[in-house]
Amino acid sequence: MTPTLMAQEIAQQPAAIERTLDALLPARDELRTLAAGRRQVVLAARGTSDHAALYARYLLEVHARLGAASAAPSLATHYDVARDLDDTLVVSLSQSGATEDVVAFQRWARRHGARTVAIANEAASPLVEEADIGLVTRAGRERAVPATKSYTAQLTAVAVLADALGPSRASFASRLRQVPEAVASCLATRAGVDGAVAALIGSDHLLVTGRGIVFGTALEVALKLEETCLQPVRGLSYADLRHGPIAVVDADTTVLVIAPGDGPMVGSLADLAADLARRGATTIAVGGDPRVQAVCDRAVAAPALPELLAPLGLIVPAQLVVEALARARGFDPDAPRGLSKVTRTEPVG
Amino acid sequence: MTPTLMAQEIAQQPAAIERTLDALLPARDELRTLAAGRRQVVLAARGTSDHAALYARYLLEVHARLGAASAAPSLATHYDVARDLDDTLVVSLSQSGATEDVVAFQRWARRHGARTVAIANEAASPLVEEADIGLVTRAGRERAVPATKSYTAQLTAVAVLADALGPSRASFASRLRQVPEAVASCLATRAGVDGAVAALIGSDHLLVTGRGIVFGTALEVALKLEETCLQPVRGLSYADLRHGPIAVVDADTTVLVIAPGDGPMVGSLADLAADLARRGATTIAVGGDPRVQAVCDRAVAAPALPELLAPLGLIVPAQLVVEALARARGFDPDAPRGLSKVTRTEPVG
Repeated sequence: MTPTLMAQEIAQQPAAIERTLDALLPARDELRTLAAGRRQVVLAARGTSDHAALYARYLLEVHARLGAASAAPSLATHYDVARDLDDTLVVSLSQSGATEDVVAFQRWARRHGARTVAIANEAASPLVEEADIGLVTRAGRERAVPATKSYTAQLTAVAVLADALGPSRASFASRLRQVPEAVASCLATRAGVDGAVAALIGSDHLLVTGRGIVFGTALEVALKLEETCLQPVRGLSYADLRHGPIAVVDADTTVLVIAPGDGPMVGSLADLAADLARRGATTIAVGGDPRVQAVCDRAVAAPALPELLAPLGLIVPAQLVVEALARARGFDPDAPRGLSKVTRTEPVG
Repeated sequence: MTPTLMAQEIAQQPAAIERTLDALLPARDELRTLAAGRRQVVLAARGTSDHAALYARYLLEVHARLGAASAAPSLATHYDVARDLDDTLVVSLSQSGATEDVVAFQRWARRHGARTVAIANEAASPLVEEADIGLVTRAGRERAVPATKSYTAQLTAVAVLADALGPSRASFASRLRQVPEAVASCLATRAGVDGAVAALIGSDHLLVTGRGIVFGTALEVALKLEETCLQPVRGLSYADLRHGPIAVVDADTTVLVIAPGDGPMVGSLADLAADLARRGATTIAVGGDPRVQAVCDRAVAAPALPELLAPLGLIVPAQLVVEALARARGFDPDAPRGLSKVTRTEPVG
């Protein structure tokens, strides 16, 4: 059987990350100069790119100690607010570099004094051409509709940006260089993937949760499950889950708990997993440390990376689960119903 | 039959809004002085309060032209990041004034130079006692677990804050004074509520959508439906819905479209509703203009308020639908399973 395009592109990620590091690490000095004196970072993105933006938000706040937040593109596209953005760096993310309201937001931000960095997989795109600095990822052409290698390449660009804007003595470039090998090793073993698929195949009520640096990963896993398995799947932060939706967790619920292997979040994610288990849910750890894995019904192994870089690894075994689950349910992961590769926020015509 | 506590508290909202306006409008000069020179607003909240914070985010950006974004409380509670917040106003929202990670975030922000405003319904609470300015809402005691009047009182405080920080020539205090009467009129007519309940009662897959200023309302309606009807309900922005989850919209889906009666979002919300209808979904407009209502299967009337104040009105008919739907499904809206009045983000003990 020929592997699906999605499976092939998942397997291409170590090389895509490596090429992207080679291309972008040399841009760090230029990025540092561009961002000098800018205390606020605003991140503009939609869909999967917005999940990479959420990683950027936490990484820039925790590592680079800047204020960082998601943009509301409608400020530009609908409200056309007059703002003074001379303290702001706008970072826009779009695989195609053509997402209309992200392009519109970047134009609006430039008009109001922002400096701009665009992260896109297409050099010949309005987002890159109009930005002060374009960080062009090197994922190569992606043919399956669900984004995989283009997403990890975006995360790589985000990590390079945070390294550039963070304290130079705390550079994690050498750790970044270890990511391709850690991902390749995870792809080779697929530890826990089949067990997770078996636990998920009959589940009607799926949740994905995470916290802090890996929260964006949880949202991305939820979106990929939903796109490929045509079933509503929610991604919720630890806190949001506790503030309401946990009431609907019961024995019919399966929860994927996305957890880094170290850092300040691991304990609370282990407590959450134990609470979910007490409510009768089936729990599957993706990553995590022995505490998290001990309280979950199943565990999927993730690449061994420190918390600040964990999102580059954690998504990979989750992609393996998603691809295998879609096939097991009789769907074509390469071409989910109702989606096309470039999403327009505004209806056409 | 005695009305439920939730029904009684829904009915108390015109008075709660009026009392809150009386108490807080005089604080506007003090708020303006406190915020002078602060260009960034960071909003800290959880659950329902976070939906009021989302209104604050848009209103402060659109009306007061400040940068505004949600806090990540874990920056304080778990990562303990050292930041310079001397350009920042932190606004914290919690009905009890005791939500632990919101209190911790405010403490952290003060330590790092932020000025602070707390919005809470309890004057004798750590959040209010430790803030530079406490905006104490006057909802009165709330006994039903689902927040209703305490939420509209929070929205009222948010509107007063935005009025204080916005351009004085564009003050909307006089429009705010009209809110209690507009809400009372909506409560008296209940137009469209029974029809919406009939459409929702058998639906297994519920979505709630909104955009811009009213996006927070959509999230709040989704949470209230989920809490009281013990069914997973998603709140999605217009853009997020288009970027993926729209693929799972089909004839089994019922969508509540929360729409203001005017402003730049109405056309796109009408287009979205038409698209959802083409995919076979049952659509229910809450508010909206004649374009939105014409393309939806059902319409629930909302108080007549301009877009910037629409969230204070739109939630009210939605609360009526939620309360009636819970009863029609045999649930007790006052005491949903699995929830208590004060939610802790960290497990106790």
